[in-house]
Amino acid sequence: MLKKSIINELKYIVGETNVLTTPEALKAYSYDGTTDWQHEPDVVVFPMTTEDVSQIMKLANKEKIPVTPRGGGTNVSGGSIPILGGIVLAMTKMNRIVKIDKENLSATVEPGVVLQDLTIALAKDGLFFPPDPQSFFGATLGGIISENGGGPACVKYGVTKQYVLGLEVVLPTGEITRFGGRTIKNVVGYDLMHIFISGEGTLGIITQAELKLNPLPPAKKTIMAVYNDMADAGETVFRVLEKGIIPGKIEFLDNYIINRVEEMVPIGLPKDADAVLLFEVDGIPEAIEKEAAGITDIAKQYGAREVRPAKDQAEADQYWTARRAGFAATFGKSPTVKNEDVTVPRGMIPDLLNKIKEISKKYDVTITVLGHAGDGNLHPAILTDRKNNEHYERALKAMDEIIESAVELGGVVAGEHGIGLEKQKFFRKTMDPVAVDLMIKIKKLLDPNNIMNPNKIWD
Amino acid sequence: MLKKSIINELKYIVGETNVLTTPEALKAYSYDGTTDWQHEPDVVVFPMTTEDVSQIMKLANKEKIPVTPRGGGTNVSGGSIPILGGIVLAMTKMNRIVKIDKENLSATVEPGVVLQDLTIALAKDGLFFPPDPQSFFGATLGGIISENGGGPACVKYGVTKQYVLGLEVVLPTGEITRFGGRTIKNVVGYDLMHIFISGEGTLGIITQAELKLNPLPPAKKTIMAVYNDMADAGETVFRVLEKGIIPGKIEFLDNYIINRVEEMVPIGLPKDADAVLLFEVDGIPEAIEKEAAGITDIAKQYGAREVRPAKDQAEADQYWTARRAGFAATFGKSPTVKNEDVTVPRGMIPDLLNKIKEISKKYDVTITVLGHAGDGNLHPAILTDRKNNEHYERALKAMDEIIESAVELGGVVAGEHGIGLEKQKFFRKTMDPVAVDLMIKIKKLLDPNNIMNPNKIWD
Repeated sequence: MLKKSIINELKYIVGETNVLTTPEALKAYSYDGTTDWQHEPDVVVFPMTTEDVSQIMKLANKEKIPVTPRGGGTNVSGGSIPILGGIVLAMTKMNRIVKIDKENLSATVEPGVVLQDLTIALAKDGLFFPPDPQSFFGATLGGIISENGGGPACVKYGVTKQYVLGLEVVLPTGEITRFGGRTIKNVVGYDLMHIFISGEGTLGIITQAELKLNPLPPAKKTIMAVYNDMADAGETVFRVLEKGIIPGKIEFLDNYIINRVEEMVPIGLPKDADAVLLFEVDGIPEAIEKEAAGITDIAKQYGAREVRPAKDQAEADQYWTARRAGFAATFGKSPTVKNEDVTVPRGMIPDLLNKIKEISKKYDVTITVLGHAGDGNLHPAILTDRKNNEHYERALKAMDEIIESAVELGGVVAGEHGIGLEKQKFFRKTMDPVAVDLMIKIKKLLDPNNIMNPNKIWD
Repeated sequence: MLKKSIINELKYIVGETNVLTTPEALKAYSYDGTTDWQHEPDVVVFPMTTEDVSQIMKLANKEKIPVTPRGGGTNVSGGSIPILGGIVLAMTKMNRIVKIDKENLSATVEPGVVLQDLTIALAKDGLFFPPDPQSFFGATLGGIISENGGGPACVKYGVTKQYVLGLEVVLPTGEITRFGGRTIKNVVGYDLMHIFISGEGTLGIITQAELKLNPLPPAKKTIMAVYNDMADAGETVFRVLEKGIIPGKIEFLDNYIINRVEEMVPIGLPKDADAVLLFEVDGIPEAIEKEAAGITDIAKQYGAREVRPAKDQAEADQYWTARRAGFAATFGKSPTVKNEDVTVPRGMIPDLLNKIKEISKKYDVTITVLGHAGDGNLHPAILTDRKNNEHYERALKAMDEIIESAVELGGVVAGEHGIGLEKQKFFRKTMDPVAVDLMIKIKKLLDPNNIMNPNKIWD
């Protein structure tokens, strides 16, 4: 419980209406998109300006109050859960798109801007921000940057960190600083921006960001390839890349996901297929026709039983809605879902898929797979029930083995969801101890009182 | 002077033939591509393995000996000059291309690999590493990564940091560690890789790197646009981008450079033009024809008196050789050349060009301009003579004003050459003091004895 005087100081900084302490508010800000974690804060504070954030952090640092920054709360590794109570710093009211600079292909945004809102605003100028975490309807730029968010489009366009030119950050001590700038090239001292991009909100609060933009591609085309064996789908992925074709997206859906999606929204997905790949190519019409033809040939050569181009954008949109629904489809089907985020070098996708099948049999648990095959990032989800101890035990063992397999194949435990609370168990196991030691030292350097989103990433 | 026993220990670590102490060797390793700086080391050491580097650093750290890492020595900010003597760690014998993984579009390289050698090896597999610092005939990957090197291709493809997936690093204390990995997506803890990418060799030694590759584009086309007013050329740059065309390269050459190049290799550049822009578009043939047509229209609309496509790849190669020769052409014409690396948001290029013209008149010094206009990175070069005090004074004042102007226009002092020794004077002036303080703290954390490329970046 925070002292009344601190609540009053917070009210003085941001105004009465921007401080919430009602039981409903504390409940609402006690969880995020992760299923396994929940903890109430003592207070929810909505800063309106960078100066507000700075003053709040100075107060929190003086009083040693934990501060958990939060955007849309769509985090799926527990990163926005105030696990030690204290202040939830809800950034959602700092949500201005400050500037769209078409001449420089850049935009200045506040951290609370929802990605979908930015996408709509940019489209009017023929521009887009390529990273596309599938929570874009709710996820905010501050969170997307702090987690280095990914999504389907990363196979061609890369991840969030490649679209951040500059950041304004409030440090845990309340100091305001700036990294990077507005130019693509910038080599003036250490590129510290990236420790905040990957900091999961544990090193500071992003209060403004300069983003790099791309012109919207003039045309797009979607193709579905249908497989009787998911390993063939996995092989097709890297054979396409190896031939020099880089589609905008290459997504993977397994038989389970296909059938759950068809239950929810019947759009004619092949219910008997072991897996499908969804490709999207983008660019000028002549180029995408060539790429689509290339993908069709390669998919057939590597075992696709059928390759189906979407006949128009409406059908393409259906496929992509189905893909997005895959996540919800899985979560709705089981009391507890352990959703993984493993990522492997692309040549290893078939091995990982085969391994997941084996693990599923070995522990007799249902494991669904969907994900961003084009960049080796898969989301196997284990359906279980925390209340059924025996089953949950098996699920956890299966999860351990999936992660071990991914790391053995040259991959990592987290591609785009971060470590947060959910993946801590695997953090030290899969990371070089010297690197971990250095991360901890840097955390101590920036946050001597350990108030900034404490107890995240490592134990 | 180092003790004989230390030289012997170094010989014990790397072998007799990999330790040089002759006067010629010390002289040869006393300078780099920068004109203004020179200092001899006490010894030049060539490690052959990561373990060698680790042992050398442990010794140096114990004995508090400065260590300056060096690749091809093409640095143009004095970064590879052993300004305090000690050990030059010449990485050129660790030059194996360990693996080219076509399935994953990645390569594993040692730091001493020369970029041109990698380019040739990758081309056999239809691949390329996009960043293209124009010193590619001599520059090594370790140096290119440590400086976050750029080049003409960055307008479309981005800078070096966007092509580094993972690093093996030896810390100043001799500990070996690893950051990142082999996947595009990787969010496992703080992304510390980037402080080494931008560290200018002051935080550790890169001993291996995992690079992201692209498929070679199937076709290219070069177009030259000729201007009577360089500001029009500057405007054309961002008008092209604004229309959604992102060429592979957009390079700028002013009248001075054009004429010096024509003196050296007459290829028919327009000697009376105020400036030319060289565009290269790449991709599938249909796409590049469209883009070339678009660029031609826009260039004419914004003041080009002539737009000339290269009739074939041979003519295109001539143009690009001319562009590359521009740097040498300038340096050959004057006893001292102060070469700048300012970078501005692209909409500001015309303003910067006009400002440079003004400054040139104001201080009555010749300032040539060439550079990577497509990403706002220009290299104004001031022709002067250090031995002529009065002229040199004026040149330095002109340089200060160019840098101030770039920063006022929202830009930075260094786009791709780093700070090293040469730009230290401008470092604190143009950076946020809180950010500088944090950089210094991180340097102290990693290098408590200040032995790792000391006295670089800041004073």
